[in-house]
Amino acid sequence: MTTAAPPPVIVLVRPQLGENIGKAARAMLNFGLTELRLVTPRDGWPNPDAGPASAGADIVLAEARVFDSLADAVADCTTIYATTVRRRGVMKPVLTPEAAAKEVHASAGRSAYVFGAERSGLETDDVTLAHKIVTVPINPAFASLNLAQAVILLAYEWSKGVALASPPEVPLDPPAPHAEMEELIGHLVRDLDASGYFFPPERTEMTLRTLRTALTKTGWSYNDIRMMHGIITSLGRNPRAR
Amino acid sequence: MTTAAPPPVIVLVRPQLGENIGKAARAMLNFGLTELRLVTPRDGWPNPDAGPASAGADIVLAEARVFDSLADAVADCTTIYATTVRRRGVMKPVLTPEAAAKEVHASAGRSAYVFGAERSGLETDDVTLAHKIVTVPINPAFASLNLAQAVILLAYEWSKGVALASPPEVPLDPPAPHAEMEELIGHLVRDLDASGYFFPPERTEMTLRTLRTALTKTGWSYNDIRMMHGIITSLGRNPRAR
Repeated sequence: MTTAAPPPVIVLVRPQLGENIGKAARAMLNFGLTELRLVTPRDGWPNPDAGPASAGADIVLAEARVFDSLADAVADCTTIYATTVRRRGVMKPVLTPEAAAKEVHASAGRSAYVFGAERSGLETDDVTLAHKIVTVPINPAFASLNLAQAVILLAYEWSKGVALASPPEVPLDPPAPHAEMEELIGHLVRDLDASGYFFPPERTEMTLRTLRTALTKTGWSYNDIRMMHGIITSLGRNPRAR
Repeated sequence: MTTAAPPPVIVLVRPQLGENIGKAARAMLNFGLTELRLVTPRDGWPNPDAGPASAGADIVLAEARVFDSLADAVADCTTIYATTVRRRGVMKPVLTPEAAAKEVHASAGRSAYVFGAERSGLETDDVTLAHKIVTVPINPAFASLNLAQAVILLAYEWSKGVALASPPEVPLDPPAPHAEMEELIGHLVRDLDASGYFFPPERTEMTLRTLRTALTKTGWSYNDIRMMHGIITSLGRNPRAR
């Protein structure tokens, strides 16, 4: 018997109003999503404004987990979708909610849908961390989608695939959970830094982003990442370059 | 050249709060719907609470028309869809928002999506007047869809059939030609070999194969590969590892 892909996690990054967190929880539960993660909510957590706005989706709020960073919040996820209505200077595949939902159902691992703050949306660094971008195709002359609306559209599209319960295609060597990739990036950046790679210093931020984007799209498995750790360590011992 | 079917009219029957009318207008305009009709709104029309809640969808509110009955409101429509989450004692075809949208696009005439009051929904007589029922498939354990959410889901599904719903084309950094990847693998293998990575020798062939598989699936662009050459060279200069 095949196991269906787990439902996506909903991650709200720096949400401002408790009311909007409650509305997002309501939107989730309407379509069967229950796992909510919050990254540094502005007014702390729990937030007394969330409950009334959730219209009874208390279980989602009660089980919400809070994280200090997006990387921590998605550490156990294999595919991370950044939701944004705006084009970013980040080269990532852009999917519709429909296409993303199909991928999520076909995935062997756990996926995360990541939403930014109400006013500002996701920061570029948040988008860089993600594998793909989900954009709701919207009226270009009036693009005014609030947080709960964005959540409901993604949850709704995901829910369409539940009834079908089609067996997911399991890749032979599935992508590793996100935490593995973070660790690899950390290792590489430390060694590159020690080798004088980041020069001039003012370009470091941009270089790190480009590096992260290149590594994020690799689809590397746990075993691939183990190998890359070995490669980074070994290259540092290269006598030729001394 | 065929003429596209006209966009559906959104009809709110006995809406209670101006705020919800505004939110419905916002949901409509987000997905390109502009024609709003109101049947005996509880607090009259115009309603000062509608504008602020519309988030700028003023044109929809300004052009909204008020009717005394649902029959009048849909007098010029050929197919009327009653939206309801509950089964009624009325024998009508029940469609998903997706199926209804396809019908609307295929129709020669004008269609109407009819929504009931916030608390009570549509009366049986309203449903009887309609040709078909549209029901959003929702979590049976938590069915708490508000008016604006129902409107946005139907508007969103409709929008998929029009030009604005085409996924945005984002120029991605395309994968590099194969020769670039060969050159990168050559560079990496030379430096790894110099660093003593391939040990024991009898496993070299297998290790090279695993390495090639991991690098081949990266989808790296020309620029990514340039960066990786720099990384390999730089890591070899790592003073920490000496």
